[in-house]
Amino acid sequence: MLDTLFRPRAVAVLGASNNTFSIGNRVVKNLITHNFKGPIYPIHPKEAEILGLKAYPSILDVPGPVDVVTIAVKSTLVPQMVEDCGKKGVKFVIIHTAGFREMGGEGARLEDALLEAAKRYGVRVYGPNCQGVMNSDPEVSVYANFTFTPMRPGNASILAQSGGVAELLNLNLRRMGSGFRMYASQGNASDVSTNELLEYFGSDPGTRTIMMHIESMKDTREFIESCRRIAKGKSLLAIRTGRSKAAAKAVSSHTGSLMQQDSLTDTIFEHAGVLRFQTTEEMISAGYALANQPVPAGPNVAIVANAGGPGIMAIDECVGCGLTLATLTEETKATLRAGLIPEAYVENPVDVAATANAEHFRLTLTALDADPGVDSILVTMVTPPFVDCEAVADAIAECAGRATKPIVCVVMTNENWASTVEKIKGAGIPVYEFPESGARVVAAMARYREVQKRLEEPPATVPGDRAAAEAILGAAPGGYIPQADAYGVLGAYGIPAARTAPMTGGRAPEGTLYPAVLKVDSPDVVHKSDAGGVELGIADDGGLQKAWERMSGAFPGAGFVVQEQCPRGTEIIVGLKREEGVGPVLMFGLGGVHVEALGDVSFRLAPLSEAGAARMVREIRSLPLLTGSRGVPAADLGAVQRLLLAVSQLAVDLPEIEEMDLNPVMVYPEGEGVKVVDVRIRKK
Amino acid sequence: MLDTLFRPRAVAVLGASNNTFSIGNRVVKNLITHNFKGPIYPIHPKEAEILGLKAYPSILDVPGPVDVVTIAVKSTLVPQMVEDCGKKGVKFVIIHTAGFREMGGEGARLEDALLEAAKRYGVRVYGPNCQGVMNSDPEVSVYANFTFTPMRPGNASILAQSGGVAELLNLNLRRMGSGFRMYASQGNASDVSTNELLEYFGSDPGTRTIMMHIESMKDTREFIESCRRIAKGKSLLAIRTGRSKAAAKAVSSHTGSLMQQDSLTDTIFEHAGVLRFQTTEEMISAGYALANQPVPAGPNVAIVANAGGPGIMAIDECVGCGLTLATLTEETKATLRAGLIPEAYVENPVDVAATANAEHFRLTLTALDADPGVDSILVTMVTPPFVDCEAVADAIAECAGRATKPIVCVVMTNENWASTVEKIKGAGIPVYEFPESGARVVAAMARYREVQKRLEEPPATVPGDRAAAEAILGAAPGGYIPQADAYGVLGAYGIPAARTAPMTGGRAPEGTLYPAVLKVDSPDVVHKSDAGGVELGIADDGGLQKAWERMSGAFPGAGFVVQEQCPRGTEIIVGLKREEGVGPVLMFGLGGVHVEALGDVSFRLAPLSEAGAARMVREIRSLPLLTGSRGVPAADLGAVQRLLLAVSQLAVDLPEIEEMDLNPVMVYPEGEGVKVVDVRIRKK
Repeated sequence: MLDTLFRPRAVAVLGASNNTFSIGNRVVKNLITHNFKGPIYPIHPKEAEILGLKAYPSILDVPGPVDVVTIAVKSTLVPQMVEDCGKKGVKFVIIHTAGFREMGGEGARLEDALLEAAKRYGVRVYGPNCQGVMNSDPEVSVYANFTFTPMRPGNASILAQSGGVAELLNLNLRRMGSGFRMYASQGNASDVSTNELLEYFGSDPGTRTIMMHIESMKDTREFIESCRRIAKGKSLLAIRTGRSKAAAKAVSSHTGSLMQQDSLTDTIFEHAGVLRFQTTEEMISAGYALANQPVPAGPNVAIVANAGGPGIMAIDECVGCGLTLATLTEETKATLRAGLIPEAYVENPVDVAATANAEHFRLTLTALDADPGVDSILVTMVTPPFVDCEAVADAIAECAGRATKPIVCVVMTNENWASTVEKIKGAGIPVYEFPESGARVVAAMARYREVQKRLEEPPATVPGDRAAAEAILGAAPGGYIPQADAYGVLGAYGIPAARTAPMTGGRAPEGTLYPAVLKVDSPDVVHKSDAGGVELGIADDGGLQKAWERMSGAFPGAGFVVQEQCPRGTEIIVGLKREEGVGPVLMFGLGGVHVEALGDVSFRLAPLSEAGAARMVREIRSLPLLTGSRGVPAADLGAVQRLLLAVSQLAVDLPEIEEMDLNPVMVYPEGEGVKVVDVRIRKK
Repeated sequence: MLDTLFRPRAVAVLGASNNTFSIGNRVVKNLITHNFKGPIYPIHPKEAEILGLKAYPSILDVPGPVDVVTIAVKSTLVPQMVEDCGKKGVKFVIIHTAGFREMGGEGARLEDALLEAAKRYGVRVYGPNCQGVMNSDPEVSVYANFTFTPMRPGNASILAQSGGVAELLNLNLRRMGSGFRMYASQGNASDVSTNELLEYFGSDPGTRTIMMHIESMKDTREFIESCRRIAKGKSLLAIRTGRSKAAAKAVSSHTGSLMQQDSLTDTIFEHAGVLRFQTTEEMISAGYALANQPVPAGPNVAIVANAGGPGIMAIDECVGCGLTLATLTEETKATLRAGLIPEAYVENPVDVAATANAEHFRLTLTALDADPGVDSILVTMVTPPFVDCEAVADAIAECAGRATKPIVCVVMTNENWASTVEKIKGAGIPVYEFPESGARVVAAMARYREVQKRLEEPPATVPGDRAAAEAILGAAPGGYIPQADAYGVLGAYGIPAARTAPMTGGRAPEGTLYPAVLKVDSPDVVHKSDAGGVELGIADDGGLQKAWERMSGAFPGAGFVVQEQCPRGTEIIVGLKREEGVGPVLMFGLGGVHVEALGDVSFRLAPLSEAGAARMVREIRSLPLLTGSRGVPAADLGAVQRLLLAVSQLAVDLPEIEEMDLNPVMVYPEGEGVKVVDVRIRKK
């Protein structure tokens, strides 16, 4: 448990110094300036006093118990220091010093040595190569960190691998009007892990929102499960860097972590209930709002503007980000018409006109908050010199205090109206400088509501004969299993497939349906059609016999299967792959060029919910090819969803399956179902 | 010419008032405060003095000549005021008053009345329902506008339909460190047009960049031509609002303009050489940089960071926006290795480390500016408390003064380092708060360079027998012309098409090639195949005879053509449509579902350049289907480009063609060309 790290009773600073340009000096100063509630022990071999505090030559000389020691000494000295801390009974060391795994070679060996020493004494290591931690809870007020931005309490906690990024988040939260709750910048994260920190922040009642910066993910499945639990009560936001190859290379020299591919990040975050952002600015903007405002119940936004052009920009951006302009009730419109000036526009967006005063704003916000069709309110305002803007700010602040719906403001003004802006911010209302920024924030808040709802969706359970499937898999060899076995597994989960039987000795299997297809069945033949291993349109037993003779000549020693030839439908592909550390990943896409050449596929982690399957299907760009158009009937999407759910169930039930490809699956018109016509299953 | 509007010798204010909460008061105050160089004449029926200036009861009482009159009186009085101005010999009236066309009905009639009065006297009207103009040129210094943000000179001019948006642009230019050169917010724009303003700003030597906000476009072709001329020397940036249906509705109640569809905007801007932005913030960020820094010669960016995480974010965003990380020369790396601390990372991004001082930054920036592989430099820095950041700022400013390449900075800091930031800004270096913002700016600058290059590309000229095509078109009836004529037009421009001949009286045309296709040829049959009007695979004269009998029964009175049946290739579609006010728009896409269901098409305006045709082909998402993949050879893209250029030439030469569809065109493997197998041409 990390409580001792974030709520230490006493902190010692190893490497403390009177040199103002040193990290050790800065840490002591930060602890003092921010009123750490416990004793601070500077450690220095010679100095008697540092920054007015009594200094000790060694951690072993400190009189009382010490929970946390920060270390900023030469890297080669660190293992010994950790050992000393162990002897002292220290619980956590925060190692600022760099020059470890991120440098490779000797650095990695040093890191191993310090970890070994820590383990021996049961000391937990935070870092190395890290900035440190902070906890702004006034009961603790610990700034065990060498950075420079003042600590100010807030509802959002910061969890960043990079110190620079953590700083950037803090800087901007502060600029928006508050600070953070807890702050962790981990650097190499060689012992205390991201998941532990996440769990700790997740259990903290003072944290409403967690903003994460992720460069590399370890124990991804555990991360996902933690997030899913936490995201039901707190909003989780993340930015993932190292998306490009060039960046991944730099990451490794930065914190010594190996970058994984970014391609699964969206899928992982979606399953974890984490809102992903592409830029830091967008994450902070949304994070601040989620930490300080209620979550909107849905996507219906009402816009209030006192200048037309920016109001229109806000509409564009809201609509572009998937929000809906709320339809105001007749009652709301009547209230606005009666209370605003005649030139006002009483539709949504409500244009209260440039002359609108405090009373006009109060009336409008009150009416919109009461309107059942409105989920959130976005105010975009300029500060006309002929209006008492301070009074307007008071009115907005007052309304926000009473409102049950989130209020987000855009104030376009200059430094002369600084106090107007401060009044609005003071009420916990997020204030942005551009209409588009405000609109994106409201959209992100609505997305978070959606995420919360999705976390409540139960995984669908599909009846399947697990024992039968396990028996088939148990008997099959490792690697690609025989076709008949693969179809047997599908059958155990009720997945509709073309009737398929092994053909041995050139005799048509009993009950063969014609027209039939003869296919080679060998783990060595991956692209069967390309290799000439598929013969279509076989009309009768005689034809089958001939085809078999030809093929068994071409593929000596291979097995063969005979399959009923299904009518053509729209071809889709469903895949399952167990990813290291992540678990079973499902893939869906249209067959042929759509998957291979155009990469138009959707991914999800198993288990899928029913609604999740529906979203997975609807996510591909080529969806219009399934929903019907001139001369083409709509495909049976219900059957496609049921197929995905069955594959999800199978993925959960049968960990022996490493990989499975249903390619192609024929999809028929609505009501006529789907049929798998080719399958490959790879066993562990 | 608008010189008198932006460089008036004298300004009168109609509706001037001593009431501080009135627009007329504000305008007089703005003119005084910003030191307008000419006389200011407040007009008021009773007051003798306004804000210390002598007031006149009527414009006709003003002693000297007046170039510009601003009007802020009741809308019903405006026509009479304009008439008085006419009598006085005023050149321009700026009408702030609202309540005209944007209100419909009586408002529109009032607008007509004031325009009529103006026309009678040769007075030009700016507005109505507008904020006004400004010119920060110190020789003039005119603030004929009622808004509130101080005027400060800069190199970027602002051209916005909405006053609120113009204000937003000004506010933020100022926040970045400068102001604007000229400023025009036009409101209803009933007389002085966007194009006139654009031309005027384009001819102003003090304007380096023009930032536009566009809600509706009139005379689009003229706008395009103006832009193309201006964009060679100045950067043109634009944001188009009213993209969504909801926004378009609000626009119309805002300035009375009818919104056009947004779908062509990208095409228009691309042809015009205008950089389009989705958000105001991005436009201002990039506009400021383009107005104050050199244009990068190419996409190769070098990043300098003193904190790892933000540097990595910058890489991600740079790469994501299409920039390339410059490869540093060995010489550069040697210089950096010798001059920086050993922990520094001397690849790109250059991580100078948190301890980097002024000398380290100076050395790095100088080396990168000298490196021939570097086109632009992005610095992302935090302000470590243990570094003399003021000295670092001085070093950056000094380097920027000498640099031949653009330098863009990201400074992540708080108010304690305000003077550090000011020092950098003071050198004309754009400073942003987030790594991603800086990266996007560099990318936008590189995009502008690309735009400039494209403007130099000459339109391709394709030899065509224009006279022959004109003769065919001249003889053809209006509407859809007969197939044989359409193929004749294609032939005149050397466009390869399936051999096609009209079939009359049931006899095979001479030289018919088999297998052949018989097609109905009638303006009434749009989807020929769906209607049963195409018969494929006809083997000989006898078959053709039979097919003709069947079809002439099914389509009595229709014409027919016989066509050689071309081998299948990849089907593409090429279209041409003359858009009202815009001119000939070319369309390209893959045939079948790709165009209709998936909307995967690219558009360009004619005339096309050779490189433009190549880009047009490469823009579609389904391009991989043309560039070859497993088992499928690459298509003859050169032939596709030649086809597009021929259609472009035809569009320019033959204005009688209102619409043309080549659908489908078969594209064969590299070296084997294309063949049009169906064409429709609609004549005016």
